[in-house]
Amino acid sequence: MTPAPDKDSPVVSSSSPATGPLPFGRLAIVGVGLIGSSLARAALARGLAGEVALADADPAVVARAAELGIGTSFHADAAEAAAGADLVISCVPVGACGLVAEAIGPVLKPGAIVSDVGSVKAAVVERMLPHLPEKDRFVPAHPVAGTEFSGPDAGFADLFEGRWSILTPPPGTAEEAISTVAAFWEACGANVETMTPAHHDLVLAITSHLPHLIAYNIVGTAADIEEVTQSEVIKFSAGGFRDFTRIAASDPTMWRDIFLNNKLAVLEALGRFSEDLAALQRAIRWGDGDALFNLFTRTRAIRRSIIDVGQDTPSPDFGRRPPGK
Amino acid sequence: MTPAPDKDSPVVSSSSPATGPLPFGRLAIVGVGLIGSSLARAALARGLAGEVALADADPAVVARAAELGIGTSFHADAAEAAAGADLVISCVPVGACGLVAEAIGPVLKPGAIVSDVGSVKAAVVERMLPHLPEKDRFVPAHPVAGTEFSGPDAGFADLFEGRWSILTPPPGTAEEAISTVAAFWEACGANVETMTPAHHDLVLAITSHLPHLIAYNIVGTAADIEEVTQSEVIKFSAGGFRDFTRIAASDPTMWRDIFLNNKLAVLEALGRFSEDLAALQRAIRWGDGDALFNLFTRTRAIRRSIIDVGQDTPSPDFGRRPPGK
Repeated sequence: MTPAPDKDSPVVSSSSPATGPLPFGRLAIVGVGLIGSSLARAALARGLAGEVALADADPAVVARAAELGIGTSFHADAAEAAAGADLVISCVPVGACGLVAEAIGPVLKPGAIVSDVGSVKAAVVERMLPHLPEKDRFVPAHPVAGTEFSGPDAGFADLFEGRWSILTPPPGTAEEAISTVAAFWEACGANVETMTPAHHDLVLAITSHLPHLIAYNIVGTAADIEEVTQSEVIKFSAGGFRDFTRIAASDPTMWRDIFLNNKLAVLEALGRFSEDLAALQRAIRWGDGDALFNLFTRTRAIRRSIIDVGQDTPSPDFGRRPPGK
Repeated sequence: MTPAPDKDSPVVSSSSPATGPLPFGRLAIVGVGLIGSSLARAALARGLAGEVALADADPAVVARAAELGIGTSFHADAAEAAAGADLVISCVPVGACGLVAEAIGPVLKPGAIVSDVGSVKAAVVERMLPHLPEKDRFVPAHPVAGTEFSGPDAGFADLFEGRWSILTPPPGTAEEAISTVAAFWEACGANVETMTPAHHDLVLAITSHLPHLIAYNIVGTAADIEEVTQSEVIKFSAGGFRDFTRIAASDPTMWRDIFLNNKLAVLEALGRFSEDLAALQRAIRWGDGDALFNLFTRTRAIRRSIIDVGQDTPSPDFGRRPPGK
């Protein structure tokens, strides 16, 4: 089984396939956006729970989820969905997860496991744990999967297939709770790895938060250049720019909360990025072609590794063609 | 027909479908990489020339091009390919285009048009024009299309379909030469726009050169962080990082030459990017959620415009799924 993290070793283990008490009697999902609605669809499609109770603070989202039929009950109130559930998963932006924990804490049935899907983990533990009655049954998780779209219509059952879900149980979490959450993610098609919240936040600052920040920034910069029209930026975006616009189209609330809640790790990653960029700027200014060539050669190898482990497609240009082609 | 650029108006016109003396008797392509081999395939597939003569300085590339059968004759010597051609297109990295012009200049038949496909244009004019016998028959072009792969095997006939090719004829270029080159690109499936070399270099610094520089830089930064292993960066790359690795896998020689040959515009774009990034860094440090949210909302609109004009696919996550899905 997956052990709880140890202070001296940030990455604890890759999980082996875990067995757990699946299917759940009742699974509750609070927040029915891209991730929440994908989890709901996966749970229904794969028979992972008898009941799939969905809650959202936005009445329009509750109504739409019911229309889509992606759960077995639909609630405006998180506590109502969580009551009687074996596993409750918060799928709201990180800034709102404390409110969810506060709402569900009092109604959780004994032994219920609580989890979440937030993209930062130390802040989630800090915000949610104080409100939960059984501290050893909280297993924070982060599925490293998504698209640039948001809302209940954007989700799909296969979203987690072949992707990683990172569990970050605080010290003292019950082994059985950890293995149950691991089994749930594996049943959704994901690979599971366990690490400390702090290490997670460092790793994701590099692999996700910094790339999003850079993408948002470059799209903003391009929009503001007065010598080049917006229409030119859009027309000639196939030269590279459009790759950045995809992730710069991600949900603004979710990403605001991520940056505000992983401040130190993001600022550290950003500091290194800016240092390296200054060196590259200097190489361009002084015409140091060798420095440029060496970096550009090194980065190719990383792309190959990502394709080798199945985390991206090897099709040229992501396989995308103009519409109709 | 497409007029030659005027000093006071950087963007001269979008072309209307031009007619020209297609098919050519002989088309010569010097440099058989991704773009050169795609042009050769497009010309053959669409019957744009009676002969398609291919030349490359690398004997292995010449042999491979012959093996692939993507031309009608194959040459180690650029002059041999260019002799007797109606249109000669240099498809070598920008740093080598002066050598190509020097080699072909003496053998060009009277009235032959010379063009290129370089990603920077002012430097190309400066390097090639002095070696060409008929100054008014040089029509530099830049197809804004490509993939992260290189070499003769990477090309395909449809690469230019629905993409833009930007012509940057120097003042005084013959109208008929410009319209012939425009007709050639349109016959390859591209849209054609004409602008000055200087304006092209500004526009592409933003839409292509800066994005590549940023992508190369972030991939380098991620590889160097010692608290996070390379294997973690690769495993969890689906959080955003992998989008950057695609363009950071582009040809190192080509991109070194671009940065060295569009120095001023790239440094200017980079300066703005860094300024904007510093402001974003400050917003994170001081917890200014509104500043973050406002930027992240603004950038979504640009993504939508790029999809609306057909320069990217609206499929979530570029439509890519793990291998086998």
